[in-house]
Amino acid sequence: MASLHCPLVCLDMEGVLTPEIWINVAEKTGIADLRRTTRDEPDYDKLMRGRLKILDQHGLKLKDIQAVIGGLEPLPGAKAFLDDLRSRAPVLILSDTFYPFAGPLMAKLGQPVLFCHTLEIASDGRIADYRLRLPDQKRESVRALKGLNFQVTAVGDSYNDVSMLSEANHGVFFRPPEQIAKEFKQFPVTRAYPELADVLNRIIAA
Amino acid sequence: MASLHCPLVCLDMEGVLTPEIWINVAEKTGIADLRRTTRDEPDYDKLMRGRLKILDQHGLKLKDIQAVIGGLEPLPGAKAFLDDLRSRAPVLILSDTFYPFAGPLMAKLGQPVLFCHTLEIASDGRIADYRLRLPDQKRESVRALKGLNFQVTAVGDSYNDVSMLSEANHGVFFRPPEQIAKEFKQFPVTRAYPELADVLNRIIAA
Repeated sequence: MASLHCPLVCLDMEGVLTPEIWINVAEKTGIADLRRTTRDEPDYDKLMRGRLKILDQHGLKLKDIQAVIGGLEPLPGAKAFLDDLRSRAPVLILSDTFYPFAGPLMAKLGQPVLFCHTLEIASDGRIADYRLRLPDQKRESVRALKGLNFQVTAVGDSYNDVSMLSEANHGVFFRPPEQIAKEFKQFPVTRAYPELADVLNRIIAA
Repeated sequence: MASLHCPLVCLDMEGVLTPEIWINVAEKTGIADLRRTTRDEPDYDKLMRGRLKILDQHGLKLKDIQAVIGGLEPLPGAKAFLDDLRSRAPVLILSDTFYPFAGPLMAKLGQPVLFCHTLEIASDGRIADYRLRLPDQKRESVRALKGLNFQVTAVGDSYNDVSMLSEANHGVFFRPPEQIAKEFKQFPVTRAYPELADVLNRIIAA
């Protein structure tokens, strides 16, 4: 008897399918201050406003950041992994990035569906502000999908994925820092795409 | 000032992106009784159980129906329309078809995300039963997506799309029968992909 369930997979973007955007912007612009992450500044709002202020100070506009991001590639093997997964189950990418940033990477990944946030762009092209579409949108999205009777598996690598992994029917880590893997032992740890695909395919076929 | 909203588009599948599956199964198998639709039998459960009984009577199993569907192509122009739309906004296909049927058509459309229903397959390959993932899932999906702070535009062609079009922030008809277009004059009527794309792109960019 084949399974009656309707599996659906939610993937984090940065670290799971693509490089970290801000770290690459910091590297390619040479602005070291842009390397700060939520580990340095736990208040996300302060962190983001700080980043936007730094961009302004350096005269960097949306198109400059887009040019940097346009030069990034998905992680090696990410597209083949994603292509195969999408033939097996609906896949949504849940990320705390912003639509105006993610476009080039989504195109390179074959236009998967991305749920993220947005930016307020001034008429001169400055990034005037950021707008969270929804607080804790990863968890809320998983909750809504479960309410639509999907069996949701969520994959992430970081602290900001833990609420989504906990909310999902199945949570899986992909290349998490040692410390996070130790702290949340309930989630299986995978480190390569074939290994992650094996775990997901077993859940999908269950 | 660029827009701050997060647009998302929900598309019906049959009639909007692909041919009607049951009509084609009726034609290709030569079983006229499979032509019955909700217009002939308004009780969907009776209709579906009748269809499954007919398949059994003719000894048709899942793989036979999949073979018929595997020979179908998306509507002419559908993939180009969808490719362009997916580069502009997240797109979900909301359909009352079944995952085991839709696979080949989804592959030909570039693996968009599909929300639909599922089938119970017996160990001998018979379609033993169907399972609605959720009653009125098109409307419920739109409602859930609005709850996630997306501005949802829904596109459909038929009576069973009206609840989704009504629930969405914007509802648009694509090639509806005259009678339905007359009855629900609140939804703009489009008849070709470039016309539909124009309407959607204006909403997305608003």
